[in-house]
Amino acid sequence: MIKVGIIGATGYAGAELARLLLQREDVEIVWYGSRSYVGEDFASIYRNVSHLVEEPCKDDDMAKLSEIADVIFTATPQGFCASQVTEEILSRTKIIDLSADFRIKDAEVYEQWYKLKHPTPQFLPEAVYGLPEINREKIKEARLVANPGCYPTCSFLTLYPMVKEGLIDTDTIIIDAKSGTSGAGRSAKVPSLYCEVNESMKPYGVASHRHTPEIEEQLSYAAGRPVTISFTPHLVPMNRGILATIYGTLTKPVTAEEVKAAYDKYYEKEYFIRMMEPGMVPQTRWVEGSNFVDIAFQIDPRTNRLVMMGAIDNMVKGAAGQAMQNMNLMFGLPENTGLKQIAVFP
Amino acid sequence: MIKVGIIGATGYAGAELARLLLQREDVEIVWYGSRSYVGEDFASIYRNVSHLVEEPCKDDDMAKLSEIADVIFTATPQGFCASQVTEEILSRTKIIDLSADFRIKDAEVYEQWYKLKHPTPQFLPEAVYGLPEINREKIKEARLVANPGCYPTCSFLTLYPMVKEGLIDTDTIIIDAKSGTSGAGRSAKVPSLYCEVNESMKPYGVASHRHTPEIEEQLSYAAGRPVTISFTPHLVPMNRGILATIYGTLTKPVTAEEVKAAYDKYYEKEYFIRMMEPGMVPQTRWVEGSNFVDIAFQIDPRTNRLVMMGAIDNMVKGAAGQAMQNMNLMFGLPENTGLKQIAVFP
Amino acid sequence: MIKVGIIGATGYAGAELARLLLQREDVEIVWYGSRSYVGEDFASIYRNVSHLVEEPCKDDDMAKLSEIADVIFTATPQGFCASQVTEEILSRTKIIDLSADFRIKDAEVYEQWYKLKHPTPQFLPEAVYGLPEINREKIKEARLVANPGCYPTCSFLTLYPMVKEGLIDTDTIIIDAKSGTSGAGRSAKVPSLYCEVNESMKPYGVASHRHTPEIEEQLSYAAGRPVTISFTPHLVPMNRGILATIYGTLTKPVTAEEVKAAYDKYYEKEYFIRMMEPGMVPQTRWVEGSNFVDIAFQIDPRTNRLVMMGAIDNMVKGAAGQAMQNMNLMFGLPENTGLKQIAVFP
Amino acid sequence: MIKVGIIGATGYAGAELARLLLQREDVEIVWYGSRSYVGEDFASIYRNVSHLVEEPCKDDDMAKLSEIADVIFTATPQGFCASQVTEEILSRTKIIDLSADFRIKDAEVYEQWYKLKHPTPQFLPEAVYGLPEINREKIKEARLVANPGCYPTCSFLTLYPMVKEGLIDTDTIIIDAKSGTSGAGRSAKVPSLYCEVNESMKPYGVASHRHTPEIEEQLSYAAGRPVTISFTPHLVPMNRGILATIYGTLTKPVTAEEVKAAYDKYYEKEYFIRMMEPGMVPQTRWVEGSNFVDIAFQIDPRTNRLVMMGAIDNMVKGAAGQAMQNMNLMFGLPENTGLKQIAVFP
Repeated sequence: MIKVGIIGATGYAGAELARLLLQREDVEIVWYGSRSYVGEDFASIYRNVSHLVEEPCKDDDMAKLSEIADVIFTATPQGFCASQVTEEILSRTKIIDLSADFRIKDAEVYEQWYKLKHPTPQFLPEAVYGLPEINREKIKEARLVANPGCYPTCSFLTLYPMVKEGLIDTDTIIIDAKSGTSGAGRSAKVPSLYCEVNESMKPYGVASHRHTPEIEEQLSYAAGRPVTISFTPHLVPMNRGILATIYGTLTKPVTAEEVKAAYDKYYEKEYFIRMMEPGMVPQTRWVEGSNFVDIAFQIDPRTNRLVMMGAIDNMVKGAAGQAMQNMNLMFGLPENTGLKQIAVFP
Repeated sequence: MIKVGIIGATGYAGAELARLLLQREDVEIVWYGSRSYVGEDFASIYRNVSHLVEEPCKDDDMAKLSEIADVIFTATPQGFCASQVTEEILSRTKIIDLSADFRIKDAEVYEQWYKLKHPTPQFLPEAVYGLPEINREKIKEARLVANPGCYPTCSFLTLYPMVKEGLIDTDTIIIDAKSGTSGAGRSAKVPSLYCEVNESMKPYGVASHRHTPEIEEQLSYAAGRPVTISFTPHLVPMNRGILATIYGTLTKPVTAEEVKAAYDKYYEKEYFIRMMEPGMVPQTRWVEGSNFVDIAFQIDPRTNRLVMMGAIDNMVKGAAGQAMQNMNLMFGLPENTGLKQIAVFP
Repeated sequence: MIKVGIIGATGYAGAELARLLLQREDVEIVWYGSRSYVGEDFASIYRNVSHLVEEPCKDDDMAKLSEIADVIFTATPQGFCASQVTEEILSRTKIIDLSADFRIKDAEVYEQWYKLKHPTPQFLPEAVYGLPEINREKIKEARLVANPGCYPTCSFLTLYPMVKEGLIDTDTIIIDAKSGTSGAGRSAKVPSLYCEVNESMKPYGVASHRHTPEIEEQLSYAAGRPVTISFTPHLVPMNRGILATIYGTLTKPVTAEEVKAAYDKYYEKEYFIRMMEPGMVPQTRWVEGSNFVDIAFQIDPRTNRLVMMGAIDNMVKGAAGQAMQNMNLMFGLPENTGLKQIAVFP
Repeated sequence: MIKVGIIGATGYAGAELARLLLQREDVEIVWYGSRSYVGEDFASIYRNVSHLVEEPCKDDDMAKLSEIADVIFTATPQGFCASQVTEEILSRTKIIDLSADFRIKDAEVYEQWYKLKHPTPQFLPEAVYGLPEINREKIKEARLVANPGCYPTCSFLTLYPMVKEGLIDTDTIIIDAKSGTSGAGRSAKVPSLYCEVNESMKPYGVASHRHTPEIEEQLSYAAGRPVTISFTPHLVPMNRGILATIYGTLTKPVTAEEVKAAYDKYYEKEYFIRMMEPGMVPQTRWVEGSNFVDIAFQIDPRTNRLVMMGAIDNMVKGAAGQAMQNMNLMFGLPENTGLKQIAVFP
């Protein structure tokens, strides 16, 4: 039985993690941490677990939690995990951080985009970027995993084989991404109200969204040289789902078969990545509630561009599901343990 | 390994059944029946199972299917199951019919509300109304189970203890029910188009909906005398979920504790029924994707009425989940096998 | 040119009023009052009027506003209007209050349901309940109009002829009402977030909603004796629209023609009330954005009940549109001036 | 009084046109043409005009209609208008065609993208592309106006000043556009069902959408040389609204002020174009139900790209509103007659 603690359990990502973990029989949640709801029953806040969870919420004392937990998930605002983690804690327990604190190797880049001084840059070198399809072996050995952002997961996985194989010119990459509203979190703000979001669509963080350097760093590793991209996120009136439509100029003439082969080279054995047949497009509904990534592409001979399209559930593969996938690896379990859910439709 | 066949697998209820069954390791789906899509890959129609199902759709030959299946689910239009079922088929396999064909014991009542002559009334006596919380023992022995309608499941379970205990006057029962749009099925009709349903709400089938006699029959068994009700369904702009708001005049002064005790008398040990604390109200989101029924009530001393409220997922407890719950009983399995999903939120 | 001031202009109802008034050429808005946004451009908060309104928001000084406005609309929380209004203000300007302060004649009933001591009960006798279809002549002479609540407008207009004509037993009236989310206002609360409301439905204020005594008072006038009702509001995932489904036991056998005739007796000449043909049901989409009330009914001979159904746009006929309708009457203008908008569809 | 005929009045665009025209006092609709509903009351199909329109639907006999109408709107499938129009009809009446038949000057290009042989290419030279902000003077004199497509209207207006002024490299233009579901029309198809569209998002027509050549043709005129673009439309779960996010590489270093000045040079006096302040982004809700175009931009110095964003209501500025704007010009009326509606919010 793996003993798990969640700090930030009452945010959307934390609660999704709880939901996924509760459906497993080899895991016990020993700590529902929630600064806002200390002492209140977790099930009174998330009534989907009514009659299933009887625990009250606890505080966010990571040191104390590390004494009883085999693994701690931090689904907390930027800066929290980095400010709490210590060598002592890491010697006792594993940490999977769903915030951005340890995703970016260069503390200066982190500070520039997040406007926060990184409190514990000494842990940056050992932190592993938790994208199992790319860093599987490192994750298995990690004490500290930086769980990727939702947009980076979708964008990078859709791009990776194309960049790795040099099929597209990395100077031309434009990512136009669309997300459901759960990505905005559960805090009470006017722009997140039902009546403001429903029946509308808007871009946000244009040319300035914090996921940009995270995507660029990973693409740079794949390309073997620095990559700079355009990234524009949009808010869509739906609860879950990210769709990334990505444009890149082809470096040479290719056939659909060649592009497909390049994807297959990296993804053929990946359980969670589903390459679609030629001519198909991904749709967020087909992955909603699941840990799958659906990827398709279209060659546009008129413009010599490749249009790549990827879809994930931002709460699952984009957050809690991927965190659990990382946990599975860190504990030597089959990677898809507890993650075989099929998207709910309709 | 239980071998399962689904006839009507490409309707919403049939596909939901497939989704639930596919997540089990003790079940094998041997037949995806779909008259409209014979020969097409099931996964090309329901892409949530892309890469997971490789079977093509087959026809609706129940006799042939009965030779290989341990149980057949019919998620088909009214009249299909009744027109196909034979003693020979029933001697070989179990049938769980998701249509209304065997729900109503009196063939005349069926014919009056469904405008169909019942082709095989000889099987009506043995068919068991598949509401496990009420008919558990009979279901265990049944060859032919009539899976209840979505509105009846929600309405009747919310009402049952109150009627059984005589707390409300059965002449005063009014059921005002609201359903997500998946209840309208997957057929291409203008009133089911996104732009027609979104941002709107309407009643339908006022004083004439076919689920009325089904609810009345079950209430009559509980009351021990004929019960006639008002039932008004409404279409709500959401995919899933049924909420029933039910009104009844109290037969005597009661406290909330007494009402609660009456519910507990019948439901305390029921895994899938969750009585809410006093003052709470059910919300369809907390059961969406799960097989739970959330029930609450409010005494209104000003009018001497009891307001009872129940919520289910119409696709799960209201159709496919309940069908699988029945299957579990029929095969001697724990009733909640494969049905412990927690509602997805948000 | 009618000079208009709005206090509470940045709430949803106040902004809707601004929108409707701005589309008129005989009205000038001289004051956009908003305590929260004093000094900020109104158009920076409601960007639908970008480039059309250049005024900043002002405070809520009703006395000062009364010196320049011909009419003041207060779209403010309960208690504000009643705490500000004075004889001096009323001698200078007309007031249309969109809050509940002057809707209920009996200050004790107000205090009991609103948990507020009424600060100026001396104005209660002269305040006119602003339902033009019922109180047209009184409104024309009024200085102070209490604009009806959204649920009461829809519920009462749907019920009025039936109660007035004695066709239904007033002891049996049950109103099951459903509202879009704009009714919850623009304040930032978790339960109003997109992800909480979307894909869900719930009842609220069961047996305790504040609109209950308002509906009962008006029904009592119509019936000529005290009426007590059951009223249950529900939250629906849509922006606008109220649908009221109302049940009442018939006092005598009637035909659809007789019921229709009773409605026509009161509404035949009403521009904003549209009786639907027999067998039709109202749908909120057909009135969204308009000041119309769509009403239909169904006789249920099995239960001897009449099911009455009404639909309005809660922001228009349920708030701002009706307020403007009242203004038209108070200024001797045709009642539908500026209110001929046809519902936007889809 | 302008006598207007609509052919295709029961599609979404035709019905929107009817709605807008009905709210004018200087226009009379003399013909509601609808092949599918001949003889049925228009108001029985679009109940938002219940009690306001008493006309039945008529056929699509354009010649007969031309005898009584001053202007004919064809909101019909591709090929209809071109197959019906004759010199005789044009000598009697003006035509505003909402289909694509006369938008593309080169009949071969039309045939290639629309897979239809153009039946009357002789009228292509005189047809005027009905984008008033660009072709105002020509529209005033036109007999035959080709009303632009929804995506082209939004995309081109957002791009025009940048291309005209040479601020962006036309070889780098990528248009990622998102549309509400009304753009898919009112035909009953499974992919347009509520349950298929809701809670999902998908691209479609990738690298092959028919609006591509229309946008390219207009951009080529502006650039003075052939322009080829990438254009990807997406389906969004909302009724109305188009958002275009457009990327182009800057041809030289520019400041936000210079970009703004370039937009102002063309749009400062345009009533329907609203340039947003620096840092703002458009949102479809702020234009929904109105004829406005909201435009914003962001310079991305990291990539040397300009991100341009435009939002319209696809049914109004993208179809019926623009058609009426064209009509106003053709009849010598102020361009915004009947088009001053402010977006409904929320």
